[in-house]
Amino acid sequence: MQHYPKSIRNLIRQLSRLPGIGEKTAERLAMHVLKAPADQAQALAESILQVKRSVQHCQQCFGLSDGPVCQICQDPGRDRDLVCVVEQPADMMSVEKAGCFKGLYHILGGVLSPMDGIGPDRLRLEQLWRRVDSGQVKEVILATSTSVEGEATASFIAQRLAGRPVKVSRIASGIPMGGDIKYVDQMTLKRAIWGRHAC
Amino acid sequence: MQHYPKSIRNLIRQLSRLPGIGEKTAERLAMHVLKAPADQAQALAESILQVKRSVQHCQQCFGLSDGPVCQICQDPGRDRDLVCVVEQPADMMSVEKAGCFKGLYHILGGVLSPMDGIGPDRLRLEQLWRRVDSGQVKEVILATSTSVEGEATASFIAQRLAGRPVKVSRIASGIPMGGDIKYVDQMTLKRAIWGRHAC
Repeated sequence: MQHYPKSIRNLIRQLSRLPGIGEKTAERLAMHVLKAPADQAQALAESILQVKRSVQHCQQCFGLSDGPVCQICQDPGRDRDLVCVVEQPADMMSVEKAGCFKGLYHILGGVLSPMDGIGPDRLRLEQLWRRVDSGQVKEVILATSTSVEGEATASFIAQRLAGRPVKVSRIASGIPMGGDIKYVDQMTLKRAIWGRHAC
Repeated sequence: MQHYPKSIRNLIRQLSRLPGIGEKTAERLAMHVLKAPADQAQALAESILQVKRSVQHCQQCFGLSDGPVCQICQDPGRDRDLVCVVEQPADMMSVEKAGCFKGLYHILGGVLSPMDGIGPDRLRLEQLWRRVDSGQVKEVILATSTSVEGEATASFIAQRLAGRPVKVSRIASGIPMGGDIKYVDQMTLKRAIWGRHAC
């Protein structure tokens, strides 16, 4: 790499800081940028700067947004009674891609993890209690992950909401679709049997 | 993807125009850029713009350079008698990485390809004849690829240089290192036998 001109070396270094991009790939990408039309390179650089300038957290759900309130929270077609609680914006995007949920979201910004010093005050829980207390929410769906921390966070929220006039539910866990029973781990199988439903 | 804010969608679109980056990877990279410190994103954007602004072709070898003459052509430690002719700057970088060549380069900018309408006038051949005629070059090493076009280009250059007081050589072709004889194609094996040397 030391044979490249300084500006190319710098671009390769910057690109290889991206996740999953090694030096070899960074070199190939840098060569592409070099050969690409100037306006395409400009558009890429501009979009990087723009995303850092304009993306902020939605004031209501704390998802990613270009403005103070995100598209989903603004959408009059969404069901305001239902709030799906997730850990991160990426989880919200996954639920959106599944395309079966038409309510609103609440992004916690993480999970409870005493080992990492993340207690309830580090998550957006106060904001969740406030949303529930506003009276507009009828059901809170806990869609944190099924890891130890995700489960603990879901239990914590369920306990804290217990006294309030709101239904609290947890997404189902069990065998993933297309999963082969003999390869599924015991914990998942146990959950699948516990959570069985009438056919 | 339509659930992301517009600026993130734009960044994902720009990133997925890079070679080998699909929409899924572009999404992951965009999320990284979003989370990364502002100065890191700024440095990446800046390096893209900088490379387009400052990289030019070296006036002597036509390799990539930050200034009018590249580092290699400027290096007083390189052997000015030897010129290695390659197709593209990336080929020059490969030879440099091999670390066994201490001469100068001449980048043709492609290969002869009548099918694609690329004749001798589309390559930097006039500039090569001029370098040879300047009298400083004692040997021209033809390191174009061993494809049909690369071989034809090497033959063409060898013929045109035949009358001039310069040695012309072609890089060896044969079994790649670590190659298994039984899996090597017949053409390569034929070349390896033709090009055999005393042990």
